[in-house]
Amino acid sequence: MTTKIIPVVKEILSANDQVALENSETFTQNNVFVLNLMASPGAGKTSLILATSTRLPDILRPGVIEGDLASRIDADKIAAQNIPVVQINTGGGCHLDAPMIRSALPELPLDEIGLLFVENVGNLVCPANFNLGANAAIVVASVSEGHDKPHKYPGIFAAADAVILNKSDLMEVFEFDLEFFTNGLRMVNADAPLFVLSCKSGNGLDVWVAWLTSKALAGD
Amino acid sequence: MTTKIIPVVKEILSANDQVALENSETFTQNNVFVLNLMASPGAGKTSLILATSTRLPDILRPGVIEGDLASRIDADKIAAQNIPVVQINTGGGCHLDAPMIRSALPELPLDEIGLLFVENVGNLVCPANFNLGANAAIVVASVSEGHDKPHKYPGIFAAADAVILNKSDLMEVFEFDLEFFTNGLRMVNADAPLFVLSCKSGNGLDVWVAWLTSKALAGD
Repeated sequence: MTTKIIPVVKEILSANDQVALENSETFTQNNVFVLNLMASPGAGKTSLILATSTRLPDILRPGVIEGDLASRIDADKIAAQNIPVVQINTGGGCHLDAPMIRSALPELPLDEIGLLFVENVGNLVCPANFNLGANAAIVVASVSEGHDKPHKYPGIFAAADAVILNKSDLMEVFEFDLEFFTNGLRMVNADAPLFVLSCKSGNGLDVWVAWLTSKALAGD
Repeated sequence: MTTKIIPVVKEILSANDQVALENSETFTQNNVFVLNLMASPGAGKTSLILATSTRLPDILRPGVIEGDLASRIDADKIAAQNIPVVQINTGGGCHLDAPMIRSALPELPLDEIGLLFVENVGNLVCPANFNLGANAAIVVASVSEGHDKPHKYPGIFAAADAVILNKSDLMEVFEFDLEFFTNGLRMVNADAPLFVLSCKSGNGLDVWVAWLTSKALAGD
């Protein structure tokens, strides 16, 4: 009877996931909690970063990585508030990936940052497929996009650790059906908390910031 | 002196472009003018199709191909107006491609349709890279997304044959800077006409429909 050598196949991380793991280790070493913010164009990611940053406790000093195909419009808004920021321009790329984040890290004072916002490219599809090494994935929807988005873009809502519904001050103007939105979200994601808020009026921001602060301080 | 055979390299169409060409031939044979509608999620593509369809001359009877990752919400809205419609669900796919359109054509009464709207997946990046065989690429932006979109997503605005700015009734609510938007558009696209309109109030729709009708009847 011959002895057979049985090949053992280990799961090999993709190049992106390997770099995401390295990013994650860097963040842990520096005690930085990292959010991957994903949304449609114009849902209010930058507004959310600005409104959240002014409400964070001192221990969670903010920093930002901005992702856009082109321009530095968002980075300029962040820098105007004296928040450390790096702008990544993807050229034509429809999402950020882990190596892009890696390349941005030397430009940030990680030892001074407690909470790092990564603002992904505005896109409800592709960003969900790329691990950046962040601690939490946040999907920002907005009332002006309509209440059918979780039904039509289930993948990204399924991947969310929390969902924000921004522009809540315009619910009546857009005849927004919150129950239909919530039902769509719960069809693909049973657990992620939903924060209904308005970055413009400030309504609802405190509840979101309390959740985020609690999560960031616990490091999970 | 030896004779050398000089290889002649012809440009080979990609698989997508080959099918796009076949689609285009089918449309020409059936005298159908085709629009590829591209926009962010929730910009108002379906509302534009519905508002435009009721204003078209009889000779341009509308038909629709709806593209979404999931659901048939938009197709149901179109069908409720007795407009022939096919829903394509891309699964996770972030854009339509020419073979998807080809597979939908047998489901449509092309001999009865004068103007075919193809509503692409809501995404300001990826759809611009795939030729479907349409006659014109229309980008639908909306006031609620903010005035910086042409600066941040130049590729898709560069590819547009016409640009629509929807939700114009909300210019003041969103403090929309039309000059900044237009400047961004003109940096990447000198020629595409810009139609500022509101599918909700109806303002501006007539000018858009007149341009579209003229173009569709001329077949270019």
